[in-house]
Amino acid sequence: MSLLVQKFGGTSVGSVERIKAVAEKVAGFHRDGHDVVVVVSAMSGETNRLIGLAQQIQEQADPREYDVLVSTGEQVTIALLCMAFKAIGCDARSYTGGQVCILTDDKHTKARIQEIDDSRIRADLSAGRVVVVAGFQGNDADGNITTLGRGGSDTSAVAIAAALKADECQIYTDVDGVYTTDPRLVEDARRLERITFEEMLEMASQGSKVLQIRAVEFAGKYKVPLRVLSSFEDGPGTLISLEDDNQMEKPVVSGIAFNRDEAKITLKGVPDRPGSASNILGLVAGANIEVDVIVQNVGHEGSSDFSFTVHRNDLKSAMDLLLSARENLGVAEVICDDGIAKIALVGVGMRSHAGVAALMFKALGDEGINIHMISTSEIKITVIIDEKYLELAVRSVHAAFEMEKEPEEQVS
Amino acid sequence: MSLLVQKFGGTSVGSVERIKAVAEKVAGFHRDGHDVVVVVSAMSGETNRLIGLAQQIQEQADPREYDVLVSTGEQVTIALLCMAFKAIGCDARSYTGGQVCILTDDKHTKARIQEIDDSRIRADLSAGRVVVVAGFQGNDADGNITTLGRGGSDTSAVAIAAALKADECQIYTDVDGVYTTDPRLVEDARRLERITFEEMLEMASQGSKVLQIRAVEFAGKYKVPLRVLSSFEDGPGTLISLEDDNQMEKPVVSGIAFNRDEAKITLKGVPDRPGSASNILGLVAGANIEVDVIVQNVGHEGSSDFSFTVHRNDLKSAMDLLLSARENLGVAEVICDDGIAKIALVGVGMRSHAGVAALMFKALGDEGINIHMISTSEIKITVIIDEKYLELAVRSVHAAFEMEKEPEEQVS
Repeated sequence: MSLLVQKFGGTSVGSVERIKAVAEKVAGFHRDGHDVVVVVSAMSGETNRLIGLAQQIQEQADPREYDVLVSTGEQVTIALLCMAFKAIGCDARSYTGGQVCILTDDKHTKARIQEIDDSRIRADLSAGRVVVVAGFQGNDADGNITTLGRGGSDTSAVAIAAALKADECQIYTDVDGVYTTDPRLVEDARRLERITFEEMLEMASQGSKVLQIRAVEFAGKYKVPLRVLSSFEDGPGTLISLEDDNQMEKPVVSGIAFNRDEAKITLKGVPDRPGSASNILGLVAGANIEVDVIVQNVGHEGSSDFSFTVHRNDLKSAMDLLLSARENLGVAEVICDDGIAKIALVGVGMRSHAGVAALMFKALGDEGINIHMISTSEIKITVIIDEKYLELAVRSVHAAFEMEKEPEEQVS
Repeated sequence: MSLLVQKFGGTSVGSVERIKAVAEKVAGFHRDGHDVVVVVSAMSGETNRLIGLAQQIQEQADPREYDVLVSTGEQVTIALLCMAFKAIGCDARSYTGGQVCILTDDKHTKARIQEIDDSRIRADLSAGRVVVVAGFQGNDADGNITTLGRGGSDTSAVAIAAALKADECQIYTDVDGVYTTDPRLVEDARRLERITFEEMLEMASQGSKVLQIRAVEFAGKYKVPLRVLSSFEDGPGTLISLEDDNQMEKPVVSGIAFNRDEAKITLKGVPDRPGSASNILGLVAGANIEVDVIVQNVGHEGSSDFSFTVHRNDLKSAMDLLLSARENLGVAEVICDDGIAKIALVGVGMRSHAGVAALMFKALGDEGINIHMISTSEIKITVIIDEKYLELAVRSVHAAFEMEKEPEEQVS
């Protein structure tokens, strides 16, 4: 029998009927003899409703009070879910983040978990109860309510699983697992049986929205096996775990992530001398703008072109900043392009297989897709292309690597 | 400068606009140099919304989880109210019941306050902050969330005022004070400048809904001056305090309370022997039915008639019980009447004035109103009459005692 931490997000508990369905599903595991801790989010729409109230009162909500406000969302869910357990004869008990001593730092609205005291949870599990914990929230050392930021419930679940040394942390969501790429874009995208923490992290940071990056980092750090499953259908989902050296067939690549959220900025005629790049990036970073892909090509006649991408929401402020500093930087021209998209091919298998980049670029080239920027890491190749080619690019790379097939059938 | 505890009920914080208005009002006191602790209820409608969700899940909500659920209502209000303070430049901090250690017993949904640790509140007041506390809730000794039952926010406010030895506990509501009787019924009902705890207690227990009985009891016990005021209009309201022996002019009577919630049960031909009354009432009390007015008239031929009133909601179960026990009790007949009303004339002044009952009964008699039952205490005379005469009775007693006039103008 296992100790399972099961997390259900806002959609999964979005109505009274769905809360009842969650209770039925979890009670099944409990009847089978498993110890179960359930972590839940606010009912979908509730957090936004609360934020809407706050916005009518204070333009920028006070962070401490924001946390007091929005943490009620999960508190409602834990109470209702426990009632649903009781209604079907399954003993259960609810806890807010503070009640099970989820200690965080004091960074309101984006706090980080520091410690969990699992004694209360363990006592209830021993007494045969299902334990229901409010995700997304904790208390700081002074007893103030804190929240972990959006998606923090995943992190709560992983942290609780780590504290309890749970056998598995199961994240129930509205998709039935992690796919090679978005099935809405590539019809024959395939659900992955398993994927490594590293790969999942790259997928998440590149735009795959199945799991929160922090939760994956946390799970990797504490080696908590994570499983993504559907709340609404039965199925094995996708297991996210350490790399398994004994796995017979390892795929070369696992997935393709992509996003359209970025814009490219190019500075032409950057003086070819030490400090140019850091001057430019320092300026941007100083305005709290995050930079993603960076490429520099040394050009001719002592100057070069320098390109990087930022979030589209940050494009205007980044451009304003750079244009007004253009002369000081000694740059000839600053131009931007918000018609781009980013594609990232991810896989731990590419470490040991040469030619992955070549195959990817060939697939794109065969379709006449021009690559603006390239950036590579040990297990990831990122390219920036024109946004209009995004669907075509993802499909052609997916097909080139035969990702629709199980790993053992792939040509590698 | 004073230390004030100000309580705002659900209607007073029923919308974002009203929450802002409360912040403005309280900030005025704060600017004038007063230390202010604000106690708030859930926004009107919110508690019922939450209970509605619970009822869709579990017919009889689990009491512990019910408290976890409904306590979110006040938590939302404290956060929004603090944001409203911050928005107008007034520093404020919110606390749930548990956060300021409002320790209660473990009787979920109707817990009683045992202790309050005021150190956190005092620290904030010293730092110049308005302190906002969620009413209606606390924690038991194991850290479980408890609620005090409906209307418990008044009790929270009084308990906090008692713990802080506040100068006044001000209950803001939708009426501008305590009246001699319900102004909807008697047009020239007069707002009372002051009333004693004892009188207010009798008024409340007799149907006046301005304040919760428990809050008045609590205030009386800890000698916390209570003031009832309007959230929406300025005005002095009504001060509820200890009897002031130095008051020059004391009114004979202070107010008339009434209600239509009761029904009368009469047992005819009750054996005239010791134990009869206790047998009957023991039966009723054993079914958890509360009995209000009790009257027994010793009759002729060794038997008597015995009457008492119960809440109308309990009438059917009380009658079922008594009818099935009729023979055992040796009672000839059990009849009931749910067409009655209760009127109570209240005033500490009647202790020292003879003839109050006579004047009251004359006023009723002059209008041809028959009195079914009479019950008296030191500061109260209660009568049961036909419900159809209620308005007429209240008006005629109000007029007979010239209650529309200030005390010094009354003929006594």
